[in-house]
Amino acid sequence: MILRRRSLAALGLAPALAQAQSDPLPSWRDTPRRRALLDFVAAVTTPGDPDFVPVPERIAVFDNDGTLWVEQPMYTQMAFILDRLRALAPGNPAWQEDALFRAALANDLRGIAAGGTEGLLRLAGAAQAGMTPERFQAIAAEWLATARDPRWGRPYTQLVYQPMLEVLAFLRARGFTTFIVSGGGVEFVRAFAEPVYGIPPHQVVGSSFALQPGEQDGRIALTREPRVDFIDDGPGKPVGIARHIGRRPIAAFGNSDGDWHMLRYTTEGPGRRLGMLIHHDDAAREYAYDRDSHVGRLARALDEAGPRGWHLVSMREDWTRVFP
Amino acid sequence: MILRRRSLAALGLAPALAQAQSDPLPSWRDTPRRRALLDFVAAVTTPGDPDFVPVPERIAVFDNDGTLWVEQPMYTQMAFILDRLRALAPGNPAWQEDALFRAALANDLRGIAAGGTEGLLRLAGAAQAGMTPERFQAIAAEWLATARDPRWGRPYTQLVYQPMLEVLAFLRARGFTTFIVSGGGVEFVRAFAEPVYGIPPHQVVGSSFALQPGEQDGRIALTREPRVDFIDDGPGKPVGIARHIGRRPIAAFGNSDGDWHMLRYTTEGPGRRLGMLIHHDDAAREYAYDRDSHVGRLARALDEAGPRGWHLVSMREDWTRVFP
Repeated sequence: MILRRRSLAALGLAPALAQAQSDPLPSWRDTPRRRALLDFVAAVTTPGDPDFVPVPERIAVFDNDGTLWVEQPMYTQMAFILDRLRALAPGNPAWQEDALFRAALANDLRGIAAGGTEGLLRLAGAAQAGMTPERFQAIAAEWLATARDPRWGRPYTQLVYQPMLEVLAFLRARGFTTFIVSGGGVEFVRAFAEPVYGIPPHQVVGSSFALQPGEQDGRIALTREPRVDFIDDGPGKPVGIARHIGRRPIAAFGNSDGDWHMLRYTTEGPGRRLGMLIHHDDAAREYAYDRDSHVGRLARALDEAGPRGWHLVSMREDWTRVFP
Repeated sequence: MILRRRSLAALGLAPALAQAQSDPLPSWRDTPRRRALLDFVAAVTTPGDPDFVPVPERIAVFDNDGTLWVEQPMYTQMAFILDRLRALAPGNPAWQEDALFRAALANDLRGIAAGGTEGLLRLAGAAQAGMTPERFQAIAAEWLATARDPRWGRPYTQLVYQPMLEVLAFLRARGFTTFIVSGGGVEFVRAFAEPVYGIPPHQVVGSSFALQPGEQDGRIALTREPRVDFIDDGPGKPVGIARHIGRRPIAAFGNSDGDWHMLRYTTEGPGRRLGMLIHHDDAAREYAYDRDSHVGRLARALDEAGPRGWHLVSMREDWTRVFP
């Protein structure tokens, strides 16, 4: 051990190592939010503490879009759907006769929005259904490996929040099981959650299409039907948690009104709880938006954060850096 | 260490300890089934082996009724439903006017069967819906703590198969993640899976009622509706696996035709796979039944086990003991 430290010192790495060992949240400034997080974890993980929670009950849930990675100017899955529709358009000439599909192929977000939720689900189904979940995940993973965010010119999977990666790792190191509870498609999130967040597929809860069992080439094959089976957003998040996790979380992280129910469900449970909302107030390094945004709208949850004891994380003030 | 071994030797425990350390499956006789299991695990966990599988992909799925615990003369959950209906009957006098409920309250299995699946689901709904999942699990756990199997006079949770507990522990020790994939109600199985099998709630997949989100005393509350949301049996098992686990298992354990699809889905995947069926052929120590049984019928899967390369475990010949 002494020898290793000496050779690290020779390489000039010892201070960085010491810091990494002593500080589990190096990208967080020493603000009340960081202290609230550290205090919560200390309380629920210290044997003998009145708020101690046994390891199996240390469940933490994270929204994905806007909480773990960038969601502006549109959800990444929407960018995937539009790219995929363009790739499939040559084989679907009838789409040119459909105003909704014409809007999608022209990247006309206003025209897409005019179709409402029903229109969005039609586009999502056309882009993402009719194949096995395994095939879909392979297509999504391939897209994620090549597509670039237009503002930063980087892969979307690099536009994850370094401070939140630190929270995930810190909680796991303290015996928590970490779950994503996303309004996005469960299989889209599963296509990258393990390499990017260290979260295995079975710890991802999300919206889903119906799966139809059948046979293909003498083998059992499941087909994604263009029919929504479950919407894991808003009031659906507590339902998704109860169905999938089967245990009420003790910590929840979100960023929009779509997470209001999940934060309530988590923090209304008995015993010590933690609710955190990421507030996007950093136009320079990322984006600044809340109550007037069409994506990731934060109004009700923002107003109620104080009374409900939820911590409002300021990206600008609380984070020393945003991306890895 | 030497001191500890010496004191164990003084107590006469050293040989038992040595055996437990060297033999991960002490309740299995040295038969081709045991060897197949050991060979499979050695192959997929040995780095450099052509069949090596990385830890995150080591997914093993287990049916519950008849695979991990006794399912005769009726599913344990059915015994729970009947007990619960009797407890609720005084508050529901209208049930006396209903032939199906009269049959249930009289323990008349033939009369219940006459109502078919629809009748069964009506009884299941009446006994188990109208409350939060948390309340339901508490009721189920309380029942499991007090109810006794009529043949053995022991709690149902003691009528689990010791050899299968050893398989669960052995696979987990080798980096597998173990899941229950049961036709039974997911929240019923979750009420005991963690203390009995070491399987946390989020690794239990099962049938479910719809959950209705709402408010109760100013808090978010979910209510179990008497409406089936998902049947995790037969062709539903691969669907449940894909939705919940999100990854095709490499090993599957079942005992009835309800597991046929799950075993196919598992063993039809690429690479080395393991499919095992528990054959109940031990009337003396447990039960003997297969193709003519009304519970846990095993016919198609029995006929196809050979051609599909599934291992048929003989309880009588392969297990030195049945219960812990």
